[in-house]
Amino acid sequence: MPLLVTGTIGIDTVHTPTAKAEEVSGGSCSYFAAAAAFHHKPIRIVGAVGGDWPNDHAALLESIDGLCLDGLERRSESKTFAWGGRYFDNMNQRETLFTELGVLEEAPPEVPASYSDSRFIFLANSHPSVQLDLLSKFPDRELAVADTMDLWINIARDELLTLFKEIDGLIINDAEAQQLTEISNPITAAKAIIEMGPGFVIVKKGEHGAVLVHNDAIAILPAYPLELTGVVDPTGAGDSFAGGFMGFLAASGRLDFSAMQTAMAWGTVTASFTLGSFGLDGLASTTREDLEARMFDFRRIARVN
Amino acid sequence: MPLLVTGTIGIDTVHTPTAKAEEVSGGSCSYFAAAAAFHHKPIRIVGAVGGDWPNDHAALLESIDGLCLDGLERRSESKTFAWGGRYFDNMNQRETLFTELGVLEEAPPEVPASYSDSRFIFLANSHPSVQLDLLSKFPDRELAVADTMDLWINIARDELLTLFKEIDGLIINDAEAQQLTEISNPITAAKAIIEMGPGFVIVKKGEHGAVLVHNDAIAILPAYPLELTGVVDPTGAGDSFAGGFMGFLAASGRLDFSAMQTAMAWGTVTASFTLGSFGLDGLASTTREDLEARMFDFRRIARVN
Repeated sequence: MPLLVTGTIGIDTVHTPTAKAEEVSGGSCSYFAAAAAFHHKPIRIVGAVGGDWPNDHAALLESIDGLCLDGLERRSESKTFAWGGRYFDNMNQRETLFTELGVLEEAPPEVPASYSDSRFIFLANSHPSVQLDLLSKFPDRELAVADTMDLWINIARDELLTLFKEIDGLIINDAEAQQLTEISNPITAAKAIIEMGPGFVIVKKGEHGAVLVHNDAIAILPAYPLELTGVVDPTGAGDSFAGGFMGFLAASGRLDFSAMQTAMAWGTVTASFTLGSFGLDGLASTTREDLEARMFDFRRIARVN
Repeated sequence: MPLLVTGTIGIDTVHTPTAKAEEVSGGSCSYFAAAAAFHHKPIRIVGAVGGDWPNDHAALLESIDGLCLDGLERRSESKTFAWGGRYFDNMNQRETLFTELGVLEEAPPEVPASYSDSRFIFLANSHPSVQLDLLSKFPDRELAVADTMDLWINIARDELLTLFKEIDGLIINDAEAQQLTEISNPITAAKAIIEMGPGFVIVKKGEHGAVLVHNDAIAILPAYPLELTGVVDPTGAGDSFAGGFMGFLAASGRLDFSAMQTAMAWGTVTASFTLGSFGLDGLASTTREDLEARMFDFRRIARVN
């Protein structure tokens, strides 16, 4: 069950209340792929970087076992997508300091012919028309899941609604779900989004966990409880959650509700390692054993009995 | 294992974005007792009402099986505690419109001699000196748990810290935990509060669930997922959670961490019925069968597997 992800490979600069990290390895595609690779191989990447992409970022991504980088375009005359942000005191909210689109302003990356048998597709946040175009290249897909953001809800709502007819699942955060539906309750909002097309919706609530709505069934989980010292940088946690979720599903080959519920727990636990360091370092320095040990903890901590 | 609660029996007026309910039956003691009575009998009440206490409020409380009202003082010349509040659009935040202290400005209610063998004590929110005085009447108690509020953290911090040395557990909400410790992370804040005295701390996060910290062990649960239509009035949900929690512990006779984790799930499910109606009506119209059916659902919905 080859799993393909398309999204950004970025250079992030992150300010937190106590620290600052400059030009760390980031981007939705990177976080998703590194998280998914714990669960499944290969993870196929479709993305583009510029000539300024740091060698150590390349080395980090290449060091992650299970990633296929055949679909990673290096454009020597272009600039890599770059993002800078600052987190406020509670680490739950942030402001964007700068966004340099770089390669995102150019043509989307090509999909290698060798990727055409991909069955699981994750469309990380980008313009819904770009997501739709990518999706059209995989008529035999078994599961297509997308993310989106406030910008597209505002300026490309029609294209987004067209995308919703084509995807099986949507993973968005609570603020976006409310923006899309004007409904503050995440479950009621998810049901309204399902009416727009996707078979299931996961609403991510950051430190408060996530909720899955699939037809009339609901699954809800808290986030893995981290203390203050365990939250170094929340950037990429949502993409890591999606990567753990989709990676587990691709590995299991199952798409039933029970498998999705288990996949959500793996997404939760995988994302918790992203929070522990700046950039991709948290995931890159985590072992499968670390992940399983924390899953064991999570089952005990979040047990309903 | 007799379980005793002391707190307010109040007359509430509640405005929500879509409705208004005037002079409904409320108060921390009422919510706690009605919730605890699902799990354990008897629940002994220590509280006071005035001559204006409506007959239908009395009839409602008397109709709840398992409540012992021997410690309910009726003071014909006094006024019942009354509170009015307005919830904002998302039902998570509210403002107080008025507070009429009434009997709370007078001497605390007497504890009947027949209550002296109470082993489980819940001190709902009141001045920490009043809580301390009540507690001193039960030297043989096995479990004493308290709630508090922002007002006492502000104006009676020393008395509160004295109380913390005497209680086994504290149940407070996330904003209060942060106010008390100046730590925004609920787990780190709970650990800081444990350093002040209580053996365990539960931080309530409203619609986002609750977390229990007991020595180095942590348990976390989401709230029972309710749709918009299921959230009529959040007033009393926190006290109902505490009632379900303590009621289960008193019934089981166990105080180990595993029992507390199960008790937290029962607290969560019990509180969800309070949200469904104004005042005590939600709990009063719920059967033990309703409760067990929702607990069955909750185990399935919040399963980590």
